[in-house]
Amino acid sequence: MIKVGIVGGTGYTGVELLRLLAAHPQVALQVITSRADAGMPVSQMFPSLRGYVDMPFTHPDQAQLEKCDLVFFATPNGIAMQQARILLDAGVKVIDLSADFRLQDIASWEKWYGMSHACPDLVAGAVYGLPEVNRAQIKTARLVANPGCYPTAVQLGFIPLIEAGVIEPASLIADAKSGVSGAGRKAEIATLFPEAADNFKAYGVAGHRHLPEIKQGLARVLGAEVGLTFVPHLTPMIRGIHATLYGRLTREFDLQALFEQRYANEPFVDVMPAGSHPETRSVRGANHCRIAVHRPQGGNTVVVLSVIDNLVKGAAGQAVQNMNIMFALPESTALNNVPLLP
Amino acid sequence: MIKVGIVGGTGYTGVELLRLLAAHPQVALQVITSRADAGMPVSQMFPSLRGYVDMPFTHPDQAQLEKCDLVFFATPNGIAMQQARILLDAGVKVIDLSADFRLQDIASWEKWYGMSHACPDLVAGAVYGLPEVNRAQIKTARLVANPGCYPTAVQLGFIPLIEAGVIEPASLIADAKSGVSGAGRKAEIATLFPEAADNFKAYGVAGHRHLPEIKQGLARVLGAEVGLTFVPHLTPMIRGIHATLYGRLTREFDLQALFEQRYANEPFVDVMPAGSHPETRSVRGANHCRIAVHRPQGGNTVVVLSVIDNLVKGAAGQAVQNMNIMFALPESTALNNVPLLP
Amino acid sequence: MIKVGIVGGTGYTGVELLRLLAAHPQVALQVITSRADAGMPVSQMFPSLRGYVDMPFTHPDQAQLEKCDLVFFATPNGIAMQQARILLDAGVKVIDLSADFRLQDIASWEKWYGMSHACPDLVAGAVYGLPEVNRAQIKTARLVANPGCYPTAVQLGFIPLIEAGVIEPASLIADAKSGVSGAGRKAEIATLFPEAADNFKAYGVAGHRHLPEIKQGLARVLGAEVGLTFVPHLTPMIRGIHATLYGRLTREFDLQALFEQRYANEPFVDVMPAGSHPETRSVRGANHCRIAVHRPQGGNTVVVLSVIDNLVKGAAGQAVQNMNIMFALPESTALNNVPLLP
Amino acid sequence: MIKVGIVGGTGYTGVELLRLLAAHPQVALQVITSRADAGMPVSQMFPSLRGYVDMPFTHPDQAQLEKCDLVFFATPNGIAMQQARILLDAGVKVIDLSADFRLQDIASWEKWYGMSHACPDLVAGAVYGLPEVNRAQIKTARLVANPGCYPTAVQLGFIPLIEAGVIEPASLIADAKSGVSGAGRKAEIATLFPEAADNFKAYGVAGHRHLPEIKQGLARVLGAEVGLTFVPHLTPMIRGIHATLYGRLTREFDLQALFEQRYANEPFVDVMPAGSHPETRSVRGANHCRIAVHRPQGGNTVVVLSVIDNLVKGAAGQAVQNMNIMFALPESTALNNVPLLP
Repeated sequence: MIKVGIVGGTGYTGVELLRLLAAHPQVALQVITSRADAGMPVSQMFPSLRGYVDMPFTHPDQAQLEKCDLVFFATPNGIAMQQARILLDAGVKVIDLSADFRLQDIASWEKWYGMSHACPDLVAGAVYGLPEVNRAQIKTARLVANPGCYPTAVQLGFIPLIEAGVIEPASLIADAKSGVSGAGRKAEIATLFPEAADNFKAYGVAGHRHLPEIKQGLARVLGAEVGLTFVPHLTPMIRGIHATLYGRLTREFDLQALFEQRYANEPFVDVMPAGSHPETRSVRGANHCRIAVHRPQGGNTVVVLSVIDNLVKGAAGQAVQNMNIMFALPESTALNNVPLLP
Repeated sequence: MIKVGIVGGTGYTGVELLRLLAAHPQVALQVITSRADAGMPVSQMFPSLRGYVDMPFTHPDQAQLEKCDLVFFATPNGIAMQQARILLDAGVKVIDLSADFRLQDIASWEKWYGMSHACPDLVAGAVYGLPEVNRAQIKTARLVANPGCYPTAVQLGFIPLIEAGVIEPASLIADAKSGVSGAGRKAEIATLFPEAADNFKAYGVAGHRHLPEIKQGLARVLGAEVGLTFVPHLTPMIRGIHATLYGRLTREFDLQALFEQRYANEPFVDVMPAGSHPETRSVRGANHCRIAVHRPQGGNTVVVLSVIDNLVKGAAGQAVQNMNIMFALPESTALNNVPLLP
Repeated sequence: MIKVGIVGGTGYTGVELLRLLAAHPQVALQVITSRADAGMPVSQMFPSLRGYVDMPFTHPDQAQLEKCDLVFFATPNGIAMQQARILLDAGVKVIDLSADFRLQDIASWEKWYGMSHACPDLVAGAVYGLPEVNRAQIKTARLVANPGCYPTAVQLGFIPLIEAGVIEPASLIADAKSGVSGAGRKAEIATLFPEAADNFKAYGVAGHRHLPEIKQGLARVLGAEVGLTFVPHLTPMIRGIHATLYGRLTREFDLQALFEQRYANEPFVDVMPAGSHPETRSVRGANHCRIAVHRPQGGNTVVVLSVIDNLVKGAAGQAVQNMNIMFALPESTALNNVPLLP
Repeated sequence: MIKVGIVGGTGYTGVELLRLLAAHPQVALQVITSRADAGMPVSQMFPSLRGYVDMPFTHPDQAQLEKCDLVFFATPNGIAMQQARILLDAGVKVIDLSADFRLQDIASWEKWYGMSHACPDLVAGAVYGLPEVNRAQIKTARLVANPGCYPTAVQLGFIPLIEAGVIEPASLIADAKSGVSGAGRKAEIATLFPEAADNFKAYGVAGHRHLPEIKQGLARVLGAEVGLTFVPHLTPMIRGIHATLYGRLTREFDLQALFEQRYANEPFVDVMPAGSHPETRSVRGANHCRIAVHRPQGGNTVVVLSVIDNLVKGAAGQAVQNMNIMFALPESTALNNVPLLP
């Protein structure tokens, strides 16, 4: 059994981790920390966990996280980088669901996240936890930077095209739509039900933190910089990301075959039949990414549709997938629940 | 392995049965019938099942249902009663998720459902599949009438009070609210998104088919007729039923203890702490019923709040629970997935 | 032209008042105050008002409210009672959309609202602004306590029955459902989209602030205390209240005629045909209350269905209706916009 | 007073027309036809109209539409073209909200709409009713082809850029998102609440009927063919379209000033301040189009965000705007209601 601790269990990625880990046959959940809610039973905050998770939140000072085999950080940005070193030094593996270790360029990170990085020396050793690209490194990683939700959906959609060199890398466009849980479980007016329901809007067009993360990931694949216009939108649903990706074809290619071959052995990337329109609900609650590739009117614009559940493949599910890889478990352990539809 | 067939797999109870059965370790799914969509892969209609259910719909004429150990009917009312006899005669057990075998009073059934009953002689032998009341009979049943969604939520809330004789049975009120999936997967204007979203309404106040079913169930518990006002409402959510039940107390009683004791050994009925307000999302996708009992301002009106997922404990989950009981499997097999929240 | 000021224009009742007043031909909007957002154009916070309301929020200290003919308070509870006296003394009429002047029993108010009342002597002179009951007093009122949203829907549904003496006044039940805007425009986790969407729950069953207000109103009509069980629920829609009311009939009566006659001359109460099920969307954005009365199965329980838009007839619209009455304008002025459906 | 008839009043554009026309001071509504619901009071189907529209639906055979000054067609495609000639010959003006007269290329129309055109000779004389482009022609038009919803949002966003010649016309991308009312009030499974809620998907990527309409409109502005990739999406809201438009800049330009100047005199196009993200709810129920223009990271991709209410500026509101122009009324008559927010 893997002794697991969770730092920050009161947000949406935290409760989703608990949902998945509660069903994991190889995990012994040791502790879930919360500074504000220490002592409260977890299932009091999240009644969905009644009968599944019976422990209370523990104050960080009493958490004894160093006794765990693995600690997940499901915290706001800026927390994991404060605590990772002591855990790593104690031999504990760390998967950070926040953004602290995602960007290799420290200056860029500090610009986008508006703070100084607390442990820049650890960043180079962190493995970016996108298994479809970095599975080998994840196996031996001590510190995994779990990808962001938009970056997961966007990268999985663009990677086959970039690897195959069939699109112009300087003019990528990612028009992405997210359910409101992507904004986190924070008391804010902008994501109140009466503000977000029956409404649609773009945000962060001038620049979003996931932009450099996506560009970094795609640049690694290409071996050179990419040019990307990234426009995120908020859509009135709880979960789900739909990325609509546009690229300019540079040569003829069997795009359907390209995608199918690229992901043939990936347990969680489903290339749908030609002509498909994946729906976000088809992955609700599950770790799948479903992708369809189109070439409208036979023109030179390729359109990729990529959907994930932002809290699963875009956060907690991918973190469990990374854990499974790091601990040499079957990669789908505890991740083969059928999506909830309707 | 239990060889299972499903008649009518294209509705919401059908796809929910598939979701649950796909994860059931003792079930070998043999056939799913659909007259209209025979030949189409099930996962084409419901992409959430891609990778989990790989068979096509089979035309009823080729279904060979008599080779199954168990057949579920997830059909509109009036179908199961046409086909049950031949299956039962062939030794196949039947669980009917429709209403064909729910009412023992044939005349009442024919009045409420507007058709002649095709096999009234089978009705007396049908077991009403509410395990919290009829577990013993379900164990040996050949034909189970799976309860309706409202009747499940309402009965589980009233039963402890009626058994204990602490409320006036002639003046029960059930104010129930259902998500829109309760109306089924039928092309109708009234349940279109633009009609049902951001809207709330009562319906069927003059009389709803679930009224006689609830009254029958409560009358059995009481041993006499009950008086019930039942007002169903449509609320803009996909899944979930919230029943708010009102009764007049006839004597002092520790209501919290009453409910806790009544359901102490029930795996799927969760009596919440005093003062709780169960939310439908706390059972989303799961077979639980969560209940809280209140006595506002210490008056003589008891208020019970009872929530279920209409497609799970209110339909497919309860059907699987009944199957587990009928086949002597652990009752929670394939039913212990954590509810999806948020 | 009536010179109007609004104190607290950043909540949902505030923006709704602005929407209605912007179209009012007899209103000259003078000032909208906000301590936190002084200087910001109102239409920057609410882009729906671009082109209709072009002024900025004014700091309360610079508001010069005493120069107005009428001031609306669209503030949290506890503010209006601090400021009403100085305005009234200056000859300014006041309509308070908060609860400060709704309860005549000061001790009860202080218990339910958890603070000392700042001006108990003004309470007796405040007129409860439910025109269907108090139109005459509103005409000459200097201080109007605008009713709460639930109290409006519930009282309008019960009043004809109580006036006619046809139901048992000791055992009233009001099962009410509100859209999420009823909780206000406050940064709170409980009303975030991912918390409130696709979810249904009761709240405040032990006691809600609108309970004493409803009981006070019905007691006035009856001339004696009433017994009421009031259970509010949160439903995933933006606007709308649906009250389902239950009473025990004490004698035979033509209930449809009773309601039709009671409201025959009311511009904003629409008694629907027998057998109707009013929908909240049928009053979306409008000042109407639509009501239907049922007697299920001819039993002795009467069921009244009453719907309003909580922000219009339940708040800002009723406030404008009260203003029209106070200033001897046609009562429907600026209130005859057609509801928005779908 | 303008004597107005409506053909096909039972869909969403029909009820929206009724909502707007009921408040129009110069309109005398003569007749609303419906073959299926003749005799039923309009307000029985749409209770929001109780007190505002008191007539019943009339059977088309008894409609006497030739006595009207103006007839709106709010019908499925293929109806208006059957009936327009006889009305035009009788001197009745026609505004067709369907697609029958939108495409000048008959062959293209027949291909996309899958039927033969009944009156190709009338098409050349039809004026495309986008006032921001064709106001002069609309003034004298006898037959107006009211634009589609997507085409309105997309064209208004691209037009300033194309007129100014600052983007590459061969590589336009329009990523558009629509509320579900855009699919019409038709009994279909795909737009049921449980299918469309909490879900997001693209559709028609291979080709959508609004593609040729948009290309025709932009080609007229450019004076040459344009290349456009158009991807529509369904988003879980009732009303609203959000178009996110991408173009490649060909030269430096003050884009904000360009848009502001282009639409300076347009009553219904609101160019928002630089950096804005228009929300669909900011135009809910109103005839406005709100637009913001961005140039992310100062790159050579221009991003335009354009929102409308698909039923108002995208259908019925624009139709009324066209009527106002055709009858020399102030263009905003009956169209200056404030958007409904929240």
